[in-house]
Amino acid sequence: MSLATDLAAPSTTHRMTVLRLGPDAAQLCDDAVVEEVPVAIAYNGIVHAVMLATPDDLEEFGLGFSLTEGIIADAEELESLRVVEGCDGIEVRMEIPMERFMALKGKRRSIAGRSGCGVCGVESLQAIARSGQPVPSGGRLSVGAVERALPRFAERQTLHRATGAAHGVAWVDAAGEILAVREDVGRHNALDKLIGWLVRTGVDRRGGFVLTSSRASYELVQKAARLGISGLVAISAPTGMAVRMAESCGVSLAGFARGNRLVVYSHGDRWV
Amino acid sequence: MSLATDLAAPSTTHRMTVLRLGPDAAQLCDDAVVEEVPVAIAYNGIVHAVMLATPDDLEEFGLGFSLTEGIIADAEELESLRVVEGCDGIEVRMEIPMERFMALKGKRRSIAGRSGCGVCGVESLQAIARSGQPVPSGGRLSVGAVERALPRFAERQTLHRATGAAHGVAWVDAAGEILAVREDVGRHNALDKLIGWLVRTGVDRRGGFVLTSSRASYELVQKAARLGISGLVAISAPTGMAVRMAESCGVSLAGFARGNRLVVYSHGDRWV
Repeated sequence: MSLATDLAAPSTTHRMTVLRLGPDAAQLCDDAVVEEVPVAIAYNGIVHAVMLATPDDLEEFGLGFSLTEGIIADAEELESLRVVEGCDGIEVRMEIPMERFMALKGKRRSIAGRSGCGVCGVESLQAIARSGQPVPSGGRLSVGAVERALPRFAERQTLHRATGAAHGVAWVDAAGEILAVREDVGRHNALDKLIGWLVRTGVDRRGGFVLTSSRASYELVQKAARLGISGLVAISAPTGMAVRMAESCGVSLAGFARGNRLVVYSHGDRWV
Repeated sequence: MSLATDLAAPSTTHRMTVLRLGPDAAQLCDDAVVEEVPVAIAYNGIVHAVMLATPDDLEEFGLGFSLTEGIIADAEELESLRVVEGCDGIEVRMEIPMERFMALKGKRRSIAGRSGCGVCGVESLQAIARSGQPVPSGGRLSVGAVERALPRFAERQTLHRATGAAHGVAWVDAAGEILAVREDVGRHNALDKLIGWLVRTGVDRRGGFVLTSSRASYELVQKAARLGISGLVAISAPTGMAVRMAESCGVSLAGFARGNRLVVYSHGDRWV
């Protein structure tokens, strides 16, 4: 059985039966379902990880993943990137400098991330407890910017609106303008895509923050910290480990950005 | 930095700042946050995987994980199970028969599952595309049972009610009675805990189904199929790969179980 269909489609249409609860009336219809496709991340010809991801914005994904996982130190180190379709999935083929590749081989983890998963393959309990890099405390974050961005964020998540099952991540500037939205079946993939965009466009990050439609898990905090992003705002709740990591690595983590409140879990003094 | 606090607590209390959107009034308060703790799964003294999981029901988790990942064929093969707290996380130490251990070593994957992640470490794109085992078509599933279970399901998710960030999974019998609920920061962990319970209690599964508060990803379908569970009902949407896998391995997959409808994506003729 092949589980992949059109590899490049972020969503596909399926026939389904809609049953009414209560009176038993069944109705057949077609509707969109979000797609997850195996995406192999390869450096210098060697597969480093296989992630399940929604197959759009894969160039940004490759760049963002390479940066947030600390595989390269800046975008210039990515010598080439090519997205190639295979039978069972998609390969993102990248070339990196030999010293980076050797460092990677040292900690090489042949792994697959499932749809809800960040990069896996960490070898031990200690490796998970490893802290992110500290972000300089830097500028202020604006509650008003969150307020302005929130109503537009829902509108901009087109894949989620079509399928009900995608995570969305936005870059919001200091004035509350949404400059980009990326979506994926995995929240960390969506963040990697957004970070790829952020680095490619070289947008001014001062006062800006990441807004995510999902829960805030520790790997989102860790990925944001690697890029020096000082604010992460989630529509939903954070986990305890995300709070501790945000506290220690200098990310102001906020959650439950709904209705008329915002709950700030770390570095609350950064908000004005 | 140690990111783990009280390892055995499914949630912890944190101090946070609540900002009002609009008029700038900040308020400090304490509230519960769901916990994710590194849980090492060890067989015969060797760590097989490190998952981030919510640290309750770990005996059921160990049993369920061993079964749904095909590491043992039935509960009798689990010779012993012990939950041990370490400095950085918790270890679930299990003993299995030598032939199972040798089979496992053959496909050994030293891996960590992050909070949103199933078991990772699959080596290739082909391995992900591998199908689940087919479930015999068997008995009927009842729309009325879903209808009866839904309002009580929300009430029974106590960790989610306290933290807003846990996934819940329930076993619902043919009459719509919720027999057990398990919760975790990861939806596949919650399902493994529930399956551990299901196998331990030996409850009659005919006409019963799994109800999950989250999206339906392909690994939930695969885990359910391994245990011969014929119905999986999600409150939220499924992914395309979950639909294809459910179709091929004989699981009736339903989603959007909200309001007064139920959308059935595979084996819709099983519902009465």
